[in-house]
Amino acid sequence: MIEETRTVFWENGQVCMIEQRLLPHEFKIVRYDTYQEVGDAITTMVVRGAPAIGAAAGFGMAIAAFNSQATTVEGLQADLKTAKDFLAKARPTAVNLFWGLERMMRVVEKPGWASADALRQGMLAEAQKIADEDIEINKRMGANGAALVPQKATIIHHCNTGSLATVGWGTALGVVRSAFEQGKDLFVLVDETRPRLQGARLTAWELKNMGVKHMVIADGASGHYMRRRGVDLCLVGADRIAANGDTTNKIGTYNLAVLAHENHVPFYVVAPYSTIDMSILHGDLIEIEEREQEEVTVIQGQRIAPEGSPAGNPAFDVTPNYLISGIVTEYGVIRQPFAVNLAKLAAEIKGKA
Amino acid sequence: MIEETRTVFWENGQVCMIEQRLLPHEFKIVRYDTYQEVGDAITTMVVRGAPAIGAAAGFGMAIAAFNSQATTVEGLQADLKTAKDFLAKARPTAVNLFWGLERMMRVVEKPGWASADALRQGMLAEAQKIADEDIEINKRMGANGAALVPQKATIIHHCNTGSLATVGWGTALGVVRSAFEQGKDLFVLVDETRPRLQGARLTAWELKNMGVKHMVIADGASGHYMRRRGVDLCLVGADRIAANGDTTNKIGTYNLAVLAHENHVPFYVVAPYSTIDMSILHGDLIEIEEREQEEVTVIQGQRIAPEGSPAGNPAFDVTPNYLISGIVTEYGVIRQPFAVNLAKLAAEIKGKA
Repeated sequence: MIEETRTVFWENGQVCMIEQRLLPHEFKIVRYDTYQEVGDAITTMVVRGAPAIGAAAGFGMAIAAFNSQATTVEGLQADLKTAKDFLAKARPTAVNLFWGLERMMRVVEKPGWASADALRQGMLAEAQKIADEDIEINKRMGANGAALVPQKATIIHHCNTGSLATVGWGTALGVVRSAFEQGKDLFVLVDETRPRLQGARLTAWELKNMGVKHMVIADGASGHYMRRRGVDLCLVGADRIAANGDTTNKIGTYNLAVLAHENHVPFYVVAPYSTIDMSILHGDLIEIEEREQEEVTVIQGQRIAPEGSPAGNPAFDVTPNYLISGIVTEYGVIRQPFAVNLAKLAAEIKGKA
Repeated sequence: MIEETRTVFWENGQVCMIEQRLLPHEFKIVRYDTYQEVGDAITTMVVRGAPAIGAAAGFGMAIAAFNSQATTVEGLQADLKTAKDFLAKARPTAVNLFWGLERMMRVVEKPGWASADALRQGMLAEAQKIADEDIEINKRMGANGAALVPQKATIIHHCNTGSLATVGWGTALGVVRSAFEQGKDLFVLVDETRPRLQGARLTAWELKNMGVKHMVIADGASGHYMRRRGVDLCLVGADRIAANGDTTNKIGTYNLAVLAHENHVPFYVVAPYSTIDMSILHGDLIEIEEREQEEVTVIQGQRIAPEGSPAGNPAFDVTPNYLISGIVTEYGVIRQPFAVNLAKLAAEIKGKA
């Protein structure tokens, strides 16, 4: 079943991924044998979505462990450090990439490994755990977020934050999934999300598979629908959340947030706690990845702009905290003031750990 | 010279148009022999842009006059009434279509035509006059608007409002043209303007031909550039302006206006006086054309959304007057409160007429 396939998984000693660039036209699994290939898959967006990138990074480290020729723990640790440095360059913005790599490095650096092979098994177990936990966390976020969704609701959703953006279930789209499973009557306006059209290609595909009523719209039409149709809430994911709640997410998120604010539509960010980066004080300190111009000027191999006309292609934007109604995490819905409440949450989690 | 070609013109008894759907890849002139073909060209957007549609409607009426078999003035008048009713259905939102047709009908209904042939010549002369006046009016708007543009300016422009949207010169892009000719240092961020990509396809092409520095951006990136790069002003056209200043324009205009307001960026609507419809009290009374779904789900023949996923495709949206810094017309820049100042302007023009 297509719905059951994880976005990233380990099988027969290979890192397997749904090749998302072919969707919705073709469903294909690609298999990688090296961490370099996994890094390239992240860079070229075979796999995308912050949580899925975190899991892919974990499996990338696992395959690096199995490919290493090292016979000693120290030798393997050195090789894994090299792999980590390589993978960390795959994409600059999503904090989950670094989070996943750091989590793997804690396993690498754990004292007392009896052998290189024991460390290899430890790496695979940790990567698997990241993946399994992702689905579990998403379901908890889904339940927390579904409580915010009215029994009958029109929702605007940006980019793709579904199963395909995670290992499974989804973040913002996971909330839609959970609310729909609770029997709520939903209509989702799907921001197509230029330039890469993750909404039109991936979110529409997931909603269609789920059986949720939806309609793809140009990103520029979101405000029109808020004014003329009425929208109950906006749901988006996040690639990195600063300590004050400022949220980096797919380009176009800020525009949607401003429109929601102007039209008094609640605007929720749905993201696992791992997306919150308490080391970044506010959003304008977050580096924004600039991707190649052809993502804007060429669509599915067809050029749309004149030859010689340049394009700007920031992959993300920053939504200032005052535009956000709440941040839905696996620990509950965090409300304003975010600087205070995120710090409180961080202290609680640290206290429990 | 490409720059010199009018968007719509009369040649050898035919209505000629630049086939805009082929740009920027191919520059081609299409020629029509009947008013029905002209109506279809408006509906299918061979020609688009409110002022260009007005001129096309004029020439459509002229060719209807020449094709009519009527030998009496009364017979020709009846045929022209039929042609007018047909052409009026070509597109529902642009007021210039109705304005152009009404102007032609005033010629039709002028008492005292000596012969059907005299009326035929009168029709062609009036259509030609609409076209000639359009360029002249645009140049006046250009001069009025250029005064608002700083010596060095970053401008966001939505859709296409250039030569191609008019008979020549342009409205909002005509202001860019005028300011550029005055030697101003301009950088234009070109909203690609989904779904039909008039920005990426047509505006970028015109700016490239003019030699103005520019960059195509996804519509969802406009707010990011306002925050991170700084934008001096936004310039957009209009398809219909209500008596209170509410402005109907290409879908995405409202989003841009809200973003501009949030970021304290002046937002100017540039449109000839003929675009102002004093019979419409406010914008929410304006009918919004819903176009076919495939404009969203298919780009240049390639499907982007899954089969079976519906799309919404409103061609226009309404920008409420409070988001507009000024309306640039051939009579000057109209400021807030628009309900008062537009009424004043209308009274002045009526007084002069």
